[in-house]
Amino acid sequence: MRILKLTLAYDGGAFVGWQQQAQGVSIQGLIEAALTRITGVETRVTGAGRTDAGVHALGQVASARIGGDQSIAELWRALNALLPPDIRVVGVDEAPADFHARFAARGKRYAYRLATGAVLSPFERRYAWHVTYPLDTVAMSAALDALVGTHDFATFQAAGSAVPDTVRTLFEVSLLTSASAPLTGSTLTEPGLTGPPWGASPSATPGLVVLLRGDGFLRHMVRNIVGTLVEVGRGRRTADSMAALLESRDRQLAGPTAPPEGLFLIDVEY
Amino acid sequence: MRILKLTLAYDGGAFVGWQQQAQGVSIQGLIEAALTRITGVETRVTGAGRTDAGVHALGQVASARIGGDQSIAELWRALNALLPPDIRVVGVDEAPADFHARFAARGKRYAYRLATGAVLSPFERRYAWHVTYPLDTVAMSAALDALVGTHDFATFQAAGSAVPDTVRTLFEVSLLTSASAPLTGSTLTEPGLTGPPWGASPSATPGLVVLLRGDGFLRHMVRNIVGTLVEVGRGRRTADSMAALLESRDRQLAGPTAPPEGLFLIDVEY
Repeated sequence: MRILKLTLAYDGGAFVGWQQQAQGVSIQGLIEAALTRITGVETRVTGAGRTDAGVHALGQVASARIGGDQSIAELWRALNALLPPDIRVVGVDEAPADFHARFAARGKRYAYRLATGAVLSPFERRYAWHVTYPLDTVAMSAALDALVGTHDFATFQAAGSAVPDTVRTLFEVSLLTSASAPLTGSTLTEPGLTGPPWGASPSATPGLVVLLRGDGFLRHMVRNIVGTLVEVGRGRRTADSMAALLESRDRQLAGPTAPPEGLFLIDVEY
Repeated sequence: MRILKLTLAYDGGAFVGWQQQAQGVSIQGLIEAALTRITGVETRVTGAGRTDAGVHALGQVASARIGGDQSIAELWRALNALLPPDIRVVGVDEAPADFHARFAARGKRYAYRLATGAVLSPFERRYAWHVTYPLDTVAMSAALDALVGTHDFATFQAAGSAVPDTVRTLFEVSLLTSASAPLTGSTLTEPGLTGPPWGASPSATPGLVVLLRGDGFLRHMVRNIVGTLVEVGRGRRTADSMAALLESRDRQLAGPTAPPEGLFLIDVEY
Protein backbone atom coordinates (compact mmCIF):
# COMPACT_ATOMS: atom_id res chain seq x y z
CA MET A 1 0.00 0.00 0.00
CA ARG A 2 1.18 3.51 -0.85
CA ILE A 3 -0.04 6.96 0.13
CA LEU A 4 -1.02 9.18 -2.78
CA LYS A 5 -1.28 12.95 -2.76
CA LEU A 6 -3.69 14.20 -5.42
CA THR A 7 -4.02 17.84 -6.46
CA LEU A 8 -7.42 18.53 -7.96
CA ALA A 9 -9.25 21.25 -9.85
CA TYR A 10 -12.99 21.11 -10.22
CA ASP A 11 -16.02 23.08 -11.29
CA GLY A 12 -18.35 22.41 -8.36
CA GLY A 13 -21.53 23.39 -10.20
CA ALA A 14 -22.77 19.87 -10.86
CA PHE A 15 -21.93 18.23 -7.52
CA VAL A 16 -23.37 17.97 -4.01
CA GLY A 17 -19.94 19.04 -2.76
CA TRP A 18 -16.68 17.33 -1.91
CA GLN A 19 -18.17 14.91 0.56
CA GLN A 20 -20.46 12.02 -0.20
CA GLN A 21 -24.11 12.61 0.71
CA ALA A 22 -27.14 10.35 0.85
CA GLN A 23 -28.26 11.80 -2.49
CA GLY A 24 -26.40 13.15 -5.48
CA VAL A 25 -22.91 12.90 -6.92
CA SER A 26 -19.92 14.01 -4.84
CA ILE A 27 -16.39 14.76 -5.98
CA GLN A 28 -14.97 12.48 -3.30
CA GLY A 29 -17.28 9.68 -4.44
CA LEU A 30 -16.19 9.93 -8.07
CA ILE A 31 -12.51 9.92 -7.18
CA GLU A 32 -12.96 6.93 -4.85
CA ALA A 33 -14.84 5.04 -7.55
CA ALA A 34 -12.11 5.83 -10.10
CA LEU A 35 -9.26 4.75 -7.78
CA THR A 36 -11.13 1.60 -6.79
CA ARG A 37 -11.61 0.71 -10.42
CA ILE A 38 -8.00 1.47 -11.39
CA THR A 39 -6.33 -0.36 -8.49
CA GLY A 40 -8.88 -3.13 -8.01
CA VAL A 41 -8.87 -2.36 -4.28
CA GLU A 42 -11.70 -0.52 -2.50
CA THR A 43 -10.22 2.95 -1.91
CA ARG A 44 -11.16 5.92 0.28
CA VAL A 45 -9.84 9.46 -0.15
CA THR A 46 -9.61 12.33 2.31
CA GLY A 47 -9.84 15.93 1.15
CA ALA A 48 -7.99 18.84 2.74
CA GLY A 49 -11.19 20.90 2.69
CA ARG A 50 -14.78 19.73 2.40
CA THR A 51 -16.02 22.18 -0.17
CA ASP A 52 -19.80 22.62 -0.20
CA ALA A 53 -22.18 22.01 -3.10
CA GLY A 54 -21.43 24.42 -5.93
CA VAL A 55 -18.02 25.52 -4.59
CA HIS A 56 -15.07 25.26 -6.98
CA ALA A 57 -11.41 24.34 -6.53
CA LEU A 58 -8.19 25.08 -8.36
CA GLY A 59 -5.90 23.21 -5.98
CA GLN A 60 -7.81 20.96 -3.61
CA VAL A 61 -5.58 18.26 -2.14
CA ALA A 62 -6.65 14.73 -1.28
CA SER A 63 -4.79 11.78 0.19
CA ALA A 64 -5.50 8.13 -0.41
CA ARG A 65 -4.02 4.81 0.68
CA ILE A 66 -3.93 2.79 -2.48
CA GLY A 67 -3.20 -0.71 -3.66
CA GLY A 68 -2.21 -1.70 -7.17
CA ASP A 69 1.18 -1.30 -8.82
CA GLN A 70 0.47 1.46 -11.32
CA SER A 71 3.10 4.13 -11.80
CA ILE A 72 2.33 7.74 -10.89
CA ALA A 73 2.01 8.61 -14.58
CA GLU A 74 -0.36 5.71 -15.19
CA LEU A 75 -2.51 6.73 -12.23
CA TRP A 76 -2.69 10.31 -13.48
CA ARG A 77 -3.71 9.25 -16.98
CA ALA A 78 -6.23 6.69 -15.76
CA LEU A 79 -7.83 9.06 -13.25
CA ASN A 80 -8.30 11.83 -15.81
CA ALA A 81 -9.66 9.29 -18.30
CA LEU A 82 -12.28 8.04 -15.83
CA LEU A 83 -13.27 11.34 -14.20
CA PRO A 84 -15.67 13.76 -15.91
CA PRO A 85 -14.12 16.90 -17.49
CA ASP A 86 -15.37 19.09 -14.64
CA ILE A 87 -12.94 17.28 -12.30
CA ARG A 88 -9.27 17.19 -13.28
CA VAL A 89 -6.31 15.69 -11.52
CA VAL A 90 -3.67 18.39 -11.79
CA GLY A 91 -0.96 16.53 -9.95
CA VAL A 92 -0.20 13.10 -8.49
CA ASP A 93 2.61 12.51 -6.01
CA GLU A 94 3.65 9.67 -3.78
CA ALA A 95 3.54 10.90 -0.17
CA PRO A 96 5.14 9.77 3.10
CA ALA A 97 3.27 7.01 4.96
CA ASP A 98 1.99 9.49 7.57
CA PHE A 99 0.61 12.04 5.08
CA HIS A 100 -3.02 13.01 5.68
CA ALA A 101 -4.47 15.72 3.43
CA ARG A 102 -6.59 17.28 6.18
CA PHE A 103 -4.49 16.90 9.34
CA ALA A 104 -1.21 17.85 7.66
CA ALA A 105 -2.58 21.05 6.06
CA ARG A 106 -0.94 24.16 7.53
CA GLY A 107 -2.98 26.63 5.54
CA LYS A 108 -5.53 27.12 2.81
CA ARG A 109 -6.35 29.94 0.45
CA TYR A 110 -9.85 30.74 -0.67
CA ALA A 111 -10.94 33.34 -3.19
CA TYR A 112 -14.46 34.69 -3.47
CA ARG A 113 -15.38 36.46 -6.70
CA LEU A 114 -17.94 39.25 -6.96
CA ALA A 115 -19.16 40.54 -10.33
CA THR A 116 -20.22 44.16 -9.99
CA GLY A 117 -21.20 45.29 -13.49
CA ALA A 118 -24.79 46.16 -14.37
CA VAL A 119 -25.04 43.08 -16.58
CA LEU A 120 -23.62 39.73 -15.52
CA SER A 121 -21.48 38.23 -18.27
CA PRO A 122 -22.81 34.84 -19.44
CA PHE A 123 -19.26 33.56 -18.89
CA GLU A 124 -19.30 34.63 -15.25
CA ARG A 125 -22.70 33.31 -14.30
CA ARG A 126 -21.39 30.10 -12.77
CA TYR A 127 -18.28 31.64 -11.22
CA ALA A 128 -19.23 34.83 -9.37
CA TRP A 129 -21.85 36.42 -7.16
CA HIS A 130 -23.48 39.26 -9.08
CA VAL A 131 -23.91 42.27 -6.80
CA THR A 132 -25.49 45.29 -8.44
CA TYR A 133 -25.50 47.69 -5.46
CA PRO A 134 -22.74 50.30 -5.47
CA LEU A 135 -20.05 49.03 -3.09
CA ASP A 136 -17.71 51.09 -0.92
CA THR A 137 -14.51 49.09 -1.38
CA VAL A 138 -12.55 51.23 1.09
CA ALA A 139 -15.00 50.31 3.86
CA MET A 140 -14.96 46.66 2.72
CA SER A 141 -11.16 46.55 2.88
CA ALA A 142 -11.17 48.04 6.38
CA ALA A 143 -13.80 45.53 7.52
CA LEU A 144 -11.78 42.68 6.05
CA ASP A 145 -8.58 43.86 7.75
CA ALA A 146 -10.35 43.62 11.13
CA LEU A 147 -10.49 39.85 10.64
CA VAL A 148 -6.76 39.20 10.24
CA GLY A 149 -5.16 37.27 13.09
CA THR A 150 -6.37 34.70 15.57
CA HIS A 151 -10.02 35.02 16.55
CA ASP A 152 -13.01 33.01 17.59
CA PHE A 153 -14.93 32.94 14.29
CA ALA A 154 -18.16 31.42 15.71
CA THR A 155 -20.06 34.45 14.35
CA PHE A 156 -19.29 33.30 10.82
CA GLN A 157 -19.89 29.59 11.31
CA ALA A 158 -22.86 27.93 9.58
CA ALA A 159 -25.91 27.85 11.86
CA GLY A 160 -26.26 24.41 13.42
CA SER A 161 -22.55 23.52 13.27
CA ALA A 162 -21.22 21.88 16.41
CA VAL A 163 -17.45 22.31 16.12
CA PRO A 164 -15.99 22.46 19.66
CA ASP A 165 -13.15 24.83 18.78
CA THR A 166 -14.09 27.80 16.61
CA VAL A 167 -10.80 29.67 16.97
CA ARG A 168 -8.97 30.08 13.67
CA THR A 169 -6.14 32.23 12.34
CA LEU A 170 -6.35 34.28 9.17
CA PHE A 171 -2.77 34.90 8.02
CA GLU A 172 -3.64 37.17 5.15
CA VAL A 173 -6.71 38.90 3.73
CA SER A 174 -7.08 41.12 0.70
CA LEU A 175 -9.70 42.71 -1.46
CA LEU A 176 -8.57 42.90 -5.06
CA THR A 177 -10.35 45.28 -7.41
CA SER A 178 -10.10 45.67 -11.17
CA ALA A 179 -8.62 49.11 -10.54
CA SER A 180 -5.88 47.97 -8.16
CA ALA A 181 -4.89 44.95 -10.17
CA PRO A 182 -2.23 45.08 -12.88
CA LEU A 183 -4.74 45.18 -15.69
CA THR A 184 -3.99 46.47 -19.12
CA GLY A 185 -6.68 47.50 -21.54
CA SER A 186 -8.11 44.45 -23.19
CA THR A 187 -8.97 44.62 -26.81
CA LEU A 188 -10.80 41.35 -26.62
CA THR A 189 -13.73 42.21 -24.40
CA GLU A 190 -16.61 44.61 -24.49
CA PRO A 191 -16.12 47.36 -21.94
CA GLY A 192 -17.64 46.23 -18.70
CA LEU A 193 -18.11 42.71 -19.88
CA THR A 194 -15.73 39.84 -19.68
CA GLY A 195 -15.16 36.74 -21.68
CA PRO A 196 -13.86 33.46 -20.40
CA PRO A 197 -10.30 33.24 -19.09
CA TRP A 198 -8.41 34.57 -22.07
CA GLY A 199 -5.11 32.86 -22.35
CA ALA A 200 -3.50 36.00 -23.55
CA SER A 201 -5.50 38.93 -22.33
CA PRO A 202 -6.48 39.99 -18.86
CA SER A 203 -10.19 40.51 -18.64
CA ALA A 204 -11.62 43.94 -18.03
CA THR A 205 -14.60 42.88 -16.01
CA PRO A 206 -15.70 45.09 -13.16
CA GLY A 207 -15.38 42.87 -10.15
CA LEU A 208 -13.83 42.18 -6.79
CA VAL A 209 -11.97 39.22 -5.37
CA VAL A 210 -11.88 38.57 -1.63
CA LEU A 211 -8.77 36.52 -0.86
CA LEU A 212 -8.35 34.75 2.49
CA ARG A 213 -5.42 32.64 3.68
CA GLY A 214 -5.78 30.91 7.02
CA ASP A 215 -4.93 27.83 9.04
CA GLY A 216 -8.47 26.52 8.80
CA PHE A 217 -11.99 27.57 7.95
CA LEU A 218 -15.30 26.80 9.66
CA ARG A 219 -18.25 25.65 7.60
CA HIS A 220 -19.59 28.56 5.47
CA MET A 221 -17.01 30.88 7.07
CA VAL A 222 -15.79 32.49 3.86
CA ARG A 223 -19.30 32.85 2.44
CA ASN A 224 -20.63 34.37 5.69
CA ILE A 225 -17.70 36.79 5.82
CA VAL A 226 -18.35 37.82 2.21
CA GLY A 227 -22.10 38.24 2.83
CA THR A 228 -21.24 40.53 5.74
CA LEU A 229 -18.61 42.44 3.73
CA VAL A 230 -21.18 43.19 1.03
CA GLU A 231 -23.45 44.69 3.71
CA VAL A 232 -20.52 46.89 4.74
CA GLY A 233 -19.97 47.82 1.09
CA ARG A 234 -23.63 48.80 0.76
CA GLY A 235 -23.42 50.98 3.88
CA ARG A 236 -25.76 48.78 5.88
CA ARG A 237 -23.12 48.24 8.56
CA THR A 238 -19.80 49.96 9.28
CA ALA A 239 -16.28 48.61 9.03
CA ASP A 240 -15.84 49.52 12.70
CA SER A 241 -18.64 47.16 13.67
CA MET A 242 -16.65 44.07 12.67
CA ALA A 243 -14.72 43.75 15.93
CA ALA A 244 -17.91 43.72 18.02
CA LEU A 245 -19.51 41.33 15.53
CA LEU A 246 -16.63 38.86 15.95
CA GLU A 247 -16.88 39.15 19.74
CA SER A 248 -20.62 38.50 19.74
CA ARG A 249 -20.14 34.91 18.55
CA ASP A 250 -23.73 35.23 17.29
CA ARG A 251 -24.37 33.98 13.75
CA GLN A 252 -27.70 35.88 13.72
CA LEU A 253 -25.84 39.19 13.81
CA ALA A 254 -23.71 38.53 10.73
CA GLY A 255 -24.76 39.02 7.10
CA PRO A 256 -26.30 36.42 4.81
CA THR A 257 -24.34 33.49 3.36
CA ALA A 258 -22.96 34.45 -0.05
CA PRO A 259 -23.87 31.94 -2.78
CA PRO A 260 -21.47 29.04 -3.42
CA GLU A 261 -20.71 29.73 -7.09
CA GLY A 262 -18.36 32.64 -6.24
CA LEU A 263 -16.12 30.55 -3.98
CA PHE A 264 -12.85 28.86 -4.99
CA LEU A 265 -10.47 26.79 -2.90
CA ILE A 266 -7.20 28.04 -4.41
CA ASP A 267 -4.61 25.86 -2.76
CA VAL A 268 -3.48 24.06 0.38
CA GLU A 269 -0.17 24.57 2.15
CA TYR A 270 1.75 21.75 3.83
CA MET B 1 -42.25 51.39 -35.57
CA ARG B 2 -38.63 51.93 -34.53
CA ILE B 3 -35.36 50.22 -35.41
CA LEU B 4 -33.48 48.78 -32.47
CA LYS B 5 -29.79 47.91 -32.35
CA LEU B 6 -29.07 45.23 -29.76
CA THR B 7 -25.58 44.27 -28.60
CA LEU B 8 -25.52 40.74 -27.22
CA ALA B 9 -23.21 38.42 -25.32
CA TYR B 10 -23.94 34.74 -25.14
CA ASP B 11 -22.56 31.40 -24.12
CA GLY B 12 -23.45 29.33 -27.17
CA GLY B 13 -23.07 25.96 -25.46
CA ALA B 14 -26.79 25.29 -25.00
CA PHE B 15 -28.09 26.50 -28.36
CA VAL B 16 -28.44 25.27 -31.94
CA GLY B 17 -26.77 28.53 -32.98
CA TRP B 18 -27.88 32.06 -33.72
CA GLN B 19 -30.39 31.09 -36.38
CA GLN B 20 -33.65 29.25 -35.84
CA GLN B 21 -33.60 25.59 -36.89
CA ALA B 22 -36.30 22.98 -37.28
CA GLN B 23 -35.23 21.50 -33.92
CA GLY B 24 -33.75 23.01 -30.77
CA VAL B 25 -33.49 26.43 -29.20
CA SER B 26 -31.82 29.28 -31.09
CA ILE B 27 -30.57 32.59 -29.76
CA GLN B 28 -32.47 34.47 -32.46
CA GLY B 29 -35.65 32.59 -31.55
CA LEU B 30 -35.40 33.47 -27.86
CA ILE B 31 -34.78 37.15 -28.59
CA GLU B 32 -37.68 37.29 -31.04
CA ALA B 33 -39.98 35.63 -28.51
CA ALA B 34 -38.91 38.08 -25.81
CA LEU B 35 -39.39 41.16 -28.03
CA THR B 36 -42.75 39.87 -29.23
CA ARG B 37 -43.89 39.39 -25.67
CA ILE B 38 -42.61 42.80 -24.50
CA THR B 39 -44.01 44.85 -27.39
CA GLY B 40 -47.14 42.82 -28.10
CA VAL B 41 -46.17 42.85 -31.79
CA GLU B 42 -44.74 39.84 -33.64
CA THR B 43 -41.05 40.75 -34.01
CA ARG B 44 -38.17 39.44 -36.13
CA VAL B 45 -34.49 40.14 -35.50
CA THR B 46 -31.49 40.01 -37.83
CA GLY B 47 -28.04 39.14 -36.54
CA ALA B 48 -24.79 40.56 -37.94
CA GLY B 49 -23.28 37.07 -37.95
CA ARG B 50 -25.01 33.71 -37.88
CA THR B 51 -22.91 31.99 -35.26
CA ASP B 52 -23.09 28.19 -35.38
CA ALA B 53 -24.21 25.82 -32.64
CA GLY B 54 -21.86 26.07 -29.67
CA VAL B 55 -20.15 29.29 -30.81
CA HIS B 56 -20.04 32.16 -28.29
CA ALA B 57 -20.35 35.94 -28.61
CA LEU B 58 -19.19 38.91 -26.61
CA GLY B 59 -20.57 41.58 -28.94
CA GLN B 60 -22.96 40.12 -31.49
CA VAL B 61 -25.20 42.84 -32.96
CA ALA B 62 -28.82 42.39 -34.01
CA SER B 63 -31.36 44.76 -35.51
CA ALA B 64 -35.12 44.63 -35.10
CA ARG B 65 -38.09 46.66 -36.24
CA ILE B 66 -40.22 46.93 -33.16
CA GLY B 67 -43.61 48.19 -32.07
CA GLY B 68 -44.62 49.21 -28.57
CA ASP B 69 -43.78 52.42 -26.74
CA GLN B 70 -41.26 51.15 -24.20
CA SER B 71 -38.23 53.30 -23.47
CA ILE B 72 -34.75 51.98 -24.27
CA ALA B 73 -34.12 51.38 -20.55
CA GLU B 74 -37.39 49.48 -20.19
CA LEU B 75 -36.57 47.32 -23.19
CA TRP B 76 -33.13 46.51 -21.80
CA ARG B 77 -34.50 45.52 -18.40
CA ALA B 78 -37.38 43.50 -19.84
CA LEU B 79 -35.17 41.64 -22.34
CA ASN B 80 -32.63 40.63 -19.70
CA ALA B 81 -35.47 39.60 -17.38
CA LEU B 82 -37.01 37.33 -20.03
CA LEU B 83 -33.84 35.88 -21.55
CA PRO B 84 -31.90 33.05 -19.87
CA PRO B 85 -28.64 34.02 -18.09
CA ASP B 86 -26.55 32.55 -20.90
CA ILE B 87 -27.82 35.32 -23.21
CA ARG B 88 -27.38 38.91 -22.05
CA VAL B 89 -28.30 42.15 -23.74
CA VAL B 90 -25.23 44.31 -23.22
CA GLY B 91 -26.55 47.36 -25.04
CA VAL B 92 -29.75 48.71 -26.58
CA ASP B 93 -29.78 51.69 -28.93
CA GLU B 94 -32.30 53.26 -31.23
CA ALA B 95 -30.92 53.10 -34.79
CA PRO B 96 -31.62 54.99 -38.02
CA ALA B 97 -34.56 53.67 -40.07
CA ASP B 98 -32.19 52.12 -42.64
CA PHE B 99 -30.03 50.24 -40.12
CA HIS B 100 -29.60 46.54 -40.85
CA ALA B 101 -27.27 44.57 -38.57
CA ARG B 102 -25.94 42.35 -41.36
CA PHE B 103 -25.83 44.60 -44.43
CA ALA B 104 -24.46 47.62 -42.55
CA ALA B 105 -21.60 45.68 -40.90
CA ARG B 106 -18.19 46.84 -42.16
CA GLY B 107 -16.18 44.35 -40.17
CA LYS B 108 -16.23 41.64 -37.54
CA ARG B 109 -13.69 40.30 -35.12
CA TYR B 110 -13.51 36.66 -34.14
CA ALA B 111 -11.24 35.06 -31.56
CA TYR B 112 -10.48 31.37 -31.40
CA ARG B 113 -9.04 30.03 -28.14
CA LEU B 114 -6.72 27.05 -27.89
CA ALA B 115 -5.79 25.50 -24.54
CA THR B 116 -2.38 23.88 -24.78
CA GLY B 117 -1.60 22.59 -21.28
CA ALA B 118 -1.36 18.87 -20.54
CA VAL B 119 -4.54 19.06 -18.46
CA LEU B 120 -7.56 21.04 -19.60
CA SER B 121 -8.83 23.28 -16.80
CA PRO B 122 -12.44 22.47 -15.84
CA PHE B 123 -13.11 26.20 -16.27
CA GLU B 124 -11.88 26.14 -19.86
CA ARG B 125 -13.68 23.03 -21.01
CA ARG B 126 -16.56 24.91 -22.62
CA TYR B 127 -14.46 27.78 -23.97
CA ALA B 128 -11.40 26.40 -25.72
CA TRP B 129 -10.14 23.63 -27.97
CA HIS B 130 -7.70 21.49 -26.05
CA VAL B 131 -4.69 20.68 -28.21
CA THR B 132 -2.03 18.57 -26.53
CA TYR B 133 0.45 18.30 -29.41
CA PRO B 134 3.49 20.59 -29.18
CA LEU B 135 2.77 23.54 -31.48
CA ASP B 136 5.27 25.60 -33.45
CA THR B 137 3.80 29.05 -32.93
CA VAL B 138 6.33 30.75 -35.21
CA ALA B 139 5.16 28.60 -38.12
CA MET B 140 1.52 29.17 -37.14
CA SER B 141 2.04 32.95 -37.13
CA ALA B 142 3.65 32.84 -40.54
CA ALA B 143 0.81 30.70 -41.92
CA LEU B 144 -1.74 33.09 -40.47
CA ASP B 145 0.03 36.11 -41.97
CA ALA B 146 -0.34 34.54 -45.43
CA LEU B 147 -4.11 35.00 -45.11
CA VAL B 148 -4.15 38.78 -44.56
CA GLY B 149 -5.67 40.77 -47.39
CA THR B 150 -8.28 40.10 -50.04
CA HIS B 151 -8.51 36.49 -51.18
CA ASP B 152 -10.94 33.91 -52.41
CA PHE B 153 -11.47 31.90 -49.23
CA ALA B 154 -13.42 29.03 -50.85
CA THR B 155 -10.79 26.60 -49.47
CA PHE B 156 -11.97 27.40 -45.95
CA GLN B 157 -15.69 27.41 -46.60
CA ALA B 158 -17.89 24.69 -45.09
CA ALA B 159 -18.38 21.79 -47.48
CA GLY B 160 -21.73 22.07 -49.21
CA SER B 161 -22.00 25.86 -48.93
CA ALA B 162 -23.28 27.56 -52.05
CA VAL B 163 -22.25 31.19 -51.59
CA PRO B 164 -21.72 32.75 -55.04
CA ASP B 165 -18.97 35.16 -53.94
CA THR B 166 -16.30 33.66 -51.70
CA VAL B 167 -13.90 36.61 -51.82
CA ARG B 168 -13.35 38.21 -48.43
CA THR B 169 -10.83 40.60 -46.90
CA LEU B 170 -8.99 39.94 -43.66
CA PHE B 171 -7.86 43.32 -42.31
CA GLU B 172 -5.90 41.96 -39.40
CA VAL B 173 -4.76 38.61 -38.05
CA SER B 174 -2.77 37.75 -34.97
CA LEU B 175 -1.71 34.83 -32.87
CA LEU B 176 -1.51 35.78 -29.20
CA THR B 177 0.45 33.54 -26.88
CA SER B 178 0.69 33.55 -23.10
CA ALA B 179 4.35 34.47 -23.49
CA SER B 180 3.81 37.48 -25.76
CA ALA B 181 0.89 38.89 -23.82
CA PRO B 182 1.35 41.35 -20.95
CA LEU B 183 0.87 38.76 -18.27
CA THR B 184 2.07 39.12 -14.74
CA GLY B 185 2.54 36.18 -12.42
CA SER B 186 -0.80 35.23 -11.00
CA THR B 187 -0.97 34.25 -7.36
CA LEU B 188 -4.49 32.94 -7.83
CA THR B 189 -3.96 30.01 -10.12
CA GLU B 190 -2.05 26.80 -10.09
CA PRO B 191 0.86 26.98 -12.47
CA GLY B 192 -0.34 25.79 -15.82
CA LEU B 193 -3.95 25.84 -14.84
CA THR B 194 -6.39 28.65 -15.05
CA GLY B 195 -9.47 29.64 -13.16
CA PRO B 196 -12.45 31.46 -14.54
CA PRO B 197 -12.03 35.05 -15.71
CA TRP B 198 -10.56 36.59 -12.59
CA GLY B 199 -11.69 40.14 -12.25
CA ALA B 200 -8.39 41.10 -10.78
CA SER B 201 -5.78 38.71 -11.98
CA PRO B 202 -4.72 37.71 -15.44
CA SER B 203 -4.77 33.99 -15.84
CA ALA B 204 -1.60 32.05 -16.36
CA THR B 205 -3.04 29.37 -18.58
CA PRO B 206 -0.90 28.06 -21.37
CA GLY B 207 -2.86 28.84 -24.46
CA LEU B 208 -3.15 30.63 -27.76
CA VAL B 209 -5.70 33.00 -29.20
CA VAL B 210 -6.16 33.36 -32.96
CA LEU B 211 -7.65 36.77 -33.67
CA LEU B 212 -9.17 37.62 -37.06
CA ARG B 213 -10.72 40.88 -38.21
CA GLY B 214 -12.33 40.95 -41.61
CA ASP B 215 -15.15 42.36 -43.71
CA GLY B 216 -17.01 39.09 -43.68
CA PHE B 217 -16.57 35.40 -42.96
CA LEU B 218 -17.79 32.35 -44.85
CA ARG B 219 -19.49 29.54 -42.99
CA HIS B 220 -16.92 27.66 -40.81
CA MET B 221 -14.15 29.89 -42.21
CA VAL B 222 -12.53 30.70 -38.86
CA ARG B 223 -12.81 27.12 -37.62
CA ASN B 224 -11.37 25.71 -40.84
CA ILE B 225 -8.50 28.21 -40.76
CA VAL B 226 -7.76 27.25 -37.13
CA GLY B 227 -7.92 23.52 -37.90
CA THR B 228 -5.40 24.11 -40.68
CA LEU B 229 -3.17 26.30 -38.48
CA VAL B 230 -2.98 23.54 -35.88
CA GLU B 231 -1.75 21.17 -38.59
CA VAL B 232 0.94 23.73 -39.41
CA GLY B 233 1.77 23.99 -35.69
CA ARG B 234 2.13 20.21 -35.50
CA GLY B 235 4.44 20.18 -38.51
CA ARG B 236 2.01 18.30 -40.73
CA ARG B 237 2.04 21.09 -43.31
CA THR B 238 4.29 24.11 -43.77
CA ALA B 239 3.52 27.81 -43.40
CA ASP B 240 4.66 28.25 -47.01
CA SER B 241 1.92 25.91 -48.20
CA MET B 242 -0.83 28.35 -47.23
CA ALA B 243 -0.68 30.43 -50.42
CA ALA B 244 -1.14 27.37 -52.65
CA LEU B 245 -3.86 26.08 -50.34
CA LEU B 246 -5.81 29.36 -50.72
CA GLU B 247 -5.38 29.20 -54.50
CA SER B 248 -6.64 25.61 -54.69
CA ARG B 249 -10.16 26.64 -53.63
CA ASP B 250 -10.47 22.99 -52.54
CA ARG B 251 -11.99 22.40 -49.08
CA GLN B 252 -10.63 18.83 -49.13
CA LEU B 253 -7.06 20.12 -49.01
CA ALA B 254 -7.52 22.20 -45.84
CA GLY B 255 -7.38 20.94 -42.25
CA PRO B 256 -10.30 19.76 -40.15
CA THR B 257 -12.94 22.10 -38.73
CA ALA B 258 -11.94 23.18 -35.22
CA PRO B 259 -14.68 22.56 -32.63
CA PRO B 260 -17.18 25.37 -32.00
CA GLU B 261 -16.55 25.87 -28.27
CA GLY B 262 -13.28 27.75 -28.87
CA LEU B 263 -14.86 30.38 -31.14
CA PHE B 264 -16.06 33.83 -30.04
CA LEU B 265 -17.61 36.60 -32.11
CA ILE B 266 -15.92 39.54 -30.38
CA ASP B 267 -17.59 42.56 -31.97
CA VAL B 268 -19.03 44.06 -35.13
CA GLU B 269 -17.91 47.32 -36.74
CA TYR B 270 -20.30 49.73 -38.44
